[in-house]
Amino acid sequence: MDYMEKEISKERADFLVKDYSRGFIRYCQFEGEAVKRGYFQSRVNICEHHRQQDGFIHAGVMATMADHTAGYAAFTTVDEAFQILTIEFKVNFLRPAYGEALVCRSRVIREGNTIIISESEVFDCRGSEEVIVAKALVTLMAVRRDKLVSKT
Amino acid sequence: MDYMEKEISKERADFLVKDYSRGFIRYCQFEGEAVKRGYFQSRVNICEHHRQQDGFIHAGVMATMADHTAGYAAFTTVDEAFQILTIEFKVNFLRPAYGEALVCRSRVIREGNTIIISESEVFDCRGSEEVIVAKALVTLMAVRRDKLVSKT
Amino acid sequence: MDYMEKEISKERADFLVKDYSRGFIRYCQFEGEAVKRGYFQSRVNICEHHRQQDGFIHAGVMATMADHTAGYAAFTTVDEAFQILTIEFKVNFLRPAYGEALVCRSRVIREGNTIIISESEVFDCRGSEEVIVAKALVTLMAVRRDKLVSKT
Amino acid sequence: MDYMEKEISKERADFLVKDYSRGFIRYCQFEGEAVKRGYFQSRVNICEHHRQQDGFIHAGVMATMADHTAGYAAFTTVDEAFQILTIEFKVNFLRPAYGEALVCRSRVIREGNTIIISESEVFDCRGSEEVIVAKALVTLMAVRRDKLVSKT
Repeated sequence: MDYMEKEISKERADFLVKDYSRGFIRYCQFEGEAVKRGYFQSRVNICEHHRQQDGFIHAGVMATMADHTAGYAAFTTVDEAFQILTIEFKVNFLRPAYGEALVCRSRVIREGNTIIISESEVFDCRGSEEVIVAKALVTLMAVRRDKLVSKT
Repeated sequence: MDYMEKEISKERADFLVKDYSRGFIRYCQFEGEAVKRGYFQSRVNICEHHRQQDGFIHAGVMATMADHTAGYAAFTTVDEAFQILTIEFKVNFLRPAYGEALVCRSRVIREGNTIIISESEVFDCRGSEEVIVAKALVTLMAVRRDKLVSKT
Repeated sequence: MDYMEKEISKERADFLVKDYSRGFIRYCQFEGEAVKRGYFQSRVNICEHHRQQDGFIHAGVMATMADHTAGYAAFTTVDEAFQILTIEFKVNFLRPAYGEALVCRSRVIREGNTIIISESEVFDCRGSEEVIVAKALVTLMAVRRDKLVSKT
Repeated sequence: MDYMEKEISKERADFLVKDYSRGFIRYCQFEGEAVKRGYFQSRVNICEHHRQQDGFIHAGVMATMADHTAGYAAFTTVDEAFQILTIEFKVNFLRPAYGEALVCRSRVIREGNTIIISESEVFDCRGSEEVIVAKALVTLMAVRRDKLVSKT
């Protein structure tokens, strides 16, 4: 698929990294970190409010990160006129996370005009080591912005 | 299954409703609201930080609520010596959410000594109307607390 | 949603029940049994070739039934010009199945012009008793037949 | 994880490849093809009865293959005293399959004494080309055979 070869512009890349962290995602302190066509990487430095009472990082933190980062990976494959919506996702928690940061890496595994499938892997940063702690398959939909009814 | 008939004690019910909102869940302002054996209900009043830039409630808010509430429904079916872990979940977003609150209702659909399956439905509160916006299937595991290694 | 009220015609219902059992589904001996708008029910009488070596019915039998029946529930909500494709599904196996037949009941839980979500429940028939053995969430897409490239 | 390094014996490998194709799986004509620790590969030559009326291979064929092969990948990581059960799986269909054979490759992505997670990829064989058509995440459970109640 030669359209996979196309890279995104520096402007688009910078915009997506910055745009990543708004609303709930900013409240969760997740940040965009790296981007290329079909790929997005994000990070969160873990605070007490990301944990459960037992000290482990909450599954909801990993799930939200897997979903949102998958969406931004999808954004890199569509025209600026399109918005990305999550139709559904599934996430497996592979082992407990308790490190000082999480990194999420998402890849588009199926491009499309309407349906896009991404895969996200969440890694727990424990000192210099990264351990995979969650894996998700995410189904997304590209919708023209002018067909979306905003609530704002 | 006659063990489905057993109700939980008032003490246990009060404990679970209160225990529901700690760590990341408290940071998200989700609160336990009602509980009976095999069932848990939670609520969140929506603030700006639960939304995306377009005004819709973020999928991660609904996913986290669906997961955590499913876990507390599972808690009502096990002995106090057990902790509940999420193995995996899958959530479908049925329509955009933009109301002033979300309510999540979770039911255990398969009890077990080790594996417990719950189903969560998230409703968007729009004035006096409730509209279902997300549905999840959640696979949980009951583990004896004394076999868990806490990180605290 | 008043379009939920509309019933399907007797001709359309008869066509869908008959059309259900073709190709791989016929090879698996699944049959359409009942249909109304947003709902489809199928059945299979269990033979040795539906089982595993240990006598339990194979998970693949239940998964295939859950998927295909969900698709036919979706068919009841769209115009005859549309074909239904499965985008993805997730199925939980709640307990082992070993009865003399399986019944699958699928309901559309979210109608749509493009994306349709169905839920399937598979029941194990043990004498006069029916026990739920699997539950699935299925994401489907309606595509105009004239936009599909057939392989035949 | 140094226990990942251990290989399985030639006897165990031969047994698993042969054992793969029984009951419903044999009826579907799927065959074990290659095995190593944490990995299993299977194949099916496509006949008319694997297809739908439109000539595409049925989603149920791919889902069943993804599930069963994931289970045999898990078998390579446990002692012979254990049986593997599927708790749940989720599969995304990435594009239509219509080739002359399917190959499924499954890898264990999380080993465990009780819960094992595998990932399956199904490829459509079109002449000398292989195209990925489905991807699944599968949650499995290892249970001691002497604790399973057989139905035979």
